Amino acid sequence: MQVPQINAEIIAIGDELLIGQTINTNAAWLGEQLNALGIKVHRSVVISDNRSEIITALNEASSRSNIIIMTGGLGPTKDDITKHTLCEYFQTELVINEDALQRITEFFERRGLPMLEVNRQQAALPAACSVIHNFKGTACGMWFERGDRVFISMPGVPYEMKGMMEEVVFGKLASFYHRPVIRHRTILTTGVGESFLANQLGEWENMLEERKIALAYLPSPGMVKLRMSSYGDEGRDVEADFQYCESELHRLVGEHIYGYDKETLQEIVGTLLRSKGATLSVAESCTGGTLARMLTSVPGSSDYLVGGVIAYNNHVKTDILQVDSNVIQQKNVVSKEVAEAMATGARRRFGTDWAISTTGVAGPGGGTETHPVGLIYVAVAGPKGCKSIELRLGKRRESNMDMASFAGLNLLRKEFLEQKADI
Amino acid sequence: MQVPQINAEIIAIGDELLIGQTINTNAAWLGEQLNALGIKVHRSVVISDNRSEIITALNEASSRSNIIIMTGGLGPTKDDITKHTLCEYFQTELVINEDALQRITEFFERRGLPMLEVNRQQAALPAACSVIHNFKGTACGMWFERGDRVFISMPGVPYEMKGMMEEVVFGKLASFYHRPVIRHRTILTTGVGESFLANQLGEWENMLEERKIALAYLPSPGMVKLRMSSYGDEGRDVEADFQYCESELHRLVGEHIYGYDKETLQEIVGTLLRSKGATLSVAESCTGGTLARMLTSVPGSSDYLVGGVIAYNNHVKTDILQVDSNVIQQKNVVSKEVAEAMATGARRRFGTDWAISTTGVAGPGGGTETHPVGLIYVAVAGPKGCKSIELRLGKRRESNMDMASFAGLNLLRKEFLEQKADI
Repeated sequence: MQVPQINAEIIAIGDELLIGQTINTNAAWLGEQLNALGIKVHRSVVISDNRSEIITALNEASSRSNIIIMTGGLGPTKDDITKHTLCEYFQTELVINEDALQRITEFFERRGLPMLEVNRQQAALPAACSVIHNFKGTACGMWFERGDRVFISMPGVPYEMKGMMEEVVFGKLASFYHRPVIRHRTILTTGVGESFLANQLGEWENMLEERKIALAYLPSPGMVKLRMSSYGDEGRDVEADFQYCESELHRLVGEHIYGYDKETLQEIVGTLLRSKGATLSVAESCTGGTLARMLTSVPGSSDYLVGGVIAYNNHVKTDILQVDSNVIQQKNVVSKEVAEAMATGARRRFGTDWAISTTGVAGPGGGTETHPVGLIYVAVAGPKGCKSIELRLGKRRESNMDMASFAGLNLLRKEFLEQKADI
Repeated sequence: MQVPQINAEIIAIGDELLIGQTINTNAAWLGEQLNALGIKVHRSVVISDNRSEIITALNEASSRSNIIIMTGGLGPTKDDITKHTLCEYFQTELVINEDALQRITEFFERRGLPMLEVNRQQAALPAACSVIHNFKGTACGMWFERGDRVFISMPGVPYEMKGMMEEVVFGKLASFYHRPVIRHRTILTTGVGESFLANQLGEWENMLEERKIALAYLPSPGMVKLRMSSYGDEGRDVEADFQYCESELHRLVGEHIYGYDKETLQEIVGTLLRSKGATLSVAESCTGGTLARMLTSVPGSSDYLVGGVIAYNNHVKTDILQVDSNVIQQKNVVSKEVAEAMATGARRRFGTDWAISTTGVAGPGGGTETHPVGLIYVAVAGPKGCKSIELRLGKRRESNMDMASFAGLNLLRKEFLEQKADI
């Protein structure tokens, strides 16, 4: 089945984006989501909150795109430029939408807040649009159709916009354009680069092609995601194909696979620990809290994370973690031995099943000939002993802190699976 | 002196931006920097790495903007589409630039890496451009002039692009357009919202207007920046005007001012501590490492940060921090008393002059009627005793962790200045 290509263009409205006060994360999120639906975003623009700019952008976009998605320019203090301009563009006028008014009224009542006239005016919407309700705020979204073109206007607040897309817009787009059933499966790898993977996976890619599964390599710091996509082949068992290809991938590069789809490494580690009622502590030197912050960003992480130590000063390593000061003197504080002693010390001190530690030169200063910036040791202590790895990273402090923390979580994941397997 | 408005347009090239794999942070940074130079970015677009898209975008941009800045599309694996398209657009051809070739050769020699033919081709540049050297990578930038229009093409790697802008482009732009001398002074406030400040500062704003100083309110989570700008008044003493306005601002809302210009709160706190040779430790419950990560992200922070404890489990609070378990039982673990006992305990345990602590309900789960999500206590212990504050934040976990950490640093800053004043 041949499916015509549907193009989308994103128009973000707002001076705060142009002067760099806000980063346009909405465009990236929309690009990713639409791409996963098989809709290609071929241009994204940011313009001022200004009538003629909006008209120009709408004209340019509708001359080349099927779907035009606007974000921003709809707050109660924005003087309604966007709404009035949309009325002009679609030759319609603002009318109070009773359904929207009721929702906005309820929004304020639930919060016990007074409703102002500016809020009431948020229910005044172009007569020609169908309203996209906002379950997380008071600015309504708008859906316009003109021939085979769809125009969507939503507020710029990311979680309001995302709520509207997920609850309303994706479904409406799929049915308006009769999009085929699209399925994705993303496999998350770490420890090897994109070119190494591509080199190993030539035959596997041919296998995917035979099964009409499209493949995308999506690299980001410390990991490469492999996304398999199947478009509209309702007649065959896509899930079975995905599973077969996935098991082949495991055979080829299984040691580098750490998770699937939207999982984060800290969530995966949390799920593993929780599955066995196991507990974790951390002992961080060069990562200085990054590892703890990654772990605690997961809701409910207090179920398995008992605590941790930021052991910046050597005295903290010897006092709280009981690292032998002779080992620090003889082997250097940045060494495999100190990393392992820190992990073992944290495991004992916090009484946890597992512990992760880091020690290294995060940079940009502090490097020497033998211990350059970017040299970092990461260790994991568990029920059956301790394991450590050496990293040789770059010169950028925060990136080194992030990459070493990621490596620590991955080492825990591997050790957990290995040590557990023997129990 | 009337200065004509100079408009800029940013064109980012790359499919990775359109499919949301990379967020376009370059556009935000360029917007902020150009705005500070008095150059208005009135449009920013993202397009595919594709000849006809690039030509269309250049035509559209040059019809309405003086300065066209392109980022991306210049890597060694990008098939040189951007460079070839620029040659076509400016009716010129690629020639090896000997100066660029020498720099690229040296770049590889310094790193002891082999130089490939693709790297040599990076020195092939349009004859009509002047080369913008890249001190941080191998892809050169290009500067073209056509009448009063300037076209700039740079690689998309943020730190390479920023290096070129700071070392070369800003200076060239200022002299090409005879930009006036522009001075800025930014005052950083925390603890009050934009509308509260605006309400307090009506008369102060009039004073600025009389002195031809422009004012911008720049709010972001937890803080509001006030930026004063003076354009091209070489005849008068702008610094004296800034100082006068600043001292008036101190008189009005001084308690909310924490820093100036590009400083971060963690840098300010670090500078204060270092100035007195003072040391710091942290005891984090609900912020789970965020505070430590903020502090340790500053190079050289090991000069004053001794260490910290992530006291997720109550047992860690009583064991390592010696918080009295009766206090936890009687007052609740989320209480002013426990926060203060944690800070005092950390200060004693680590032997530091100062300690910051946090305890609260970060969310999204775990809230109760009396201790709802967002209720957080932050305490600071110092040479002259302990001080704590209560925060009532929102429902989003990571935002709560960030805001509470920021509040902890600010409380330390205030206490340091107050307690120090009495010594």
